[in-house]
Amino acid sequence: MKVRIHIMLKSNVLDPQGKAVSNALHHLGYSTLNDVRQGKYLEIDFRESNTAKVRRIAEQMCREFLANTVIEDFTIDVVCV
Amino acid sequence: MKVRIHIMLKSNVLDPQGKAVSNALHHLGYSTLNDVRQGKYLEIDFRESNTAKVRRIAEQMCREFLANTVIEDFTIDVVCV
Repeated sequence: MKVRIHIMLKSNVLDPQGKAVSNALHHLGYSTLNDVRQGKYLEIDFRESNTAKVRRIAEQMCREFLANTVIEDFTIDVVCV
Repeated sequence: MKVRIHIMLKSNVLDPQGKAVSNALHHLGYSTLNDVRQGKYLEIDFRESNTAKVRRIAEQMCREFLANTVIEDFTIDVVCV
């Protein structure tokens, strides 16, 4: 079972990486951009078929290790292939 | 109009960052993982309402600047809010 995790800086936290990408794209002539936010994306494959259990483990992993919940938000999508 | 871009290493390319996360999670006791792949995620907000045009611009940006298409694949989702 596969889990897709998005980790983004909270919307009120400055995103220097996104800002750098935005500036670079403007310099390349892409003038129709308003804003860029950059985050992390993880695809995790589990040896486990219980959706609720996989979601619980993924959430614990995010809180414990993958995300800094002081400044980051995460979303978890469990994909039943 | 918002665009969501996922950039991942091609599946046949070694992903050291994903491997490091996988190893760390195993050390923390998460033993039900098979595999972890880590990628980049961007949310780009456009001042433009033509879906086809936004998709074309986003694709060009990925090819030109955001992704290294030799080793990376990208997917673009145009979100009509």
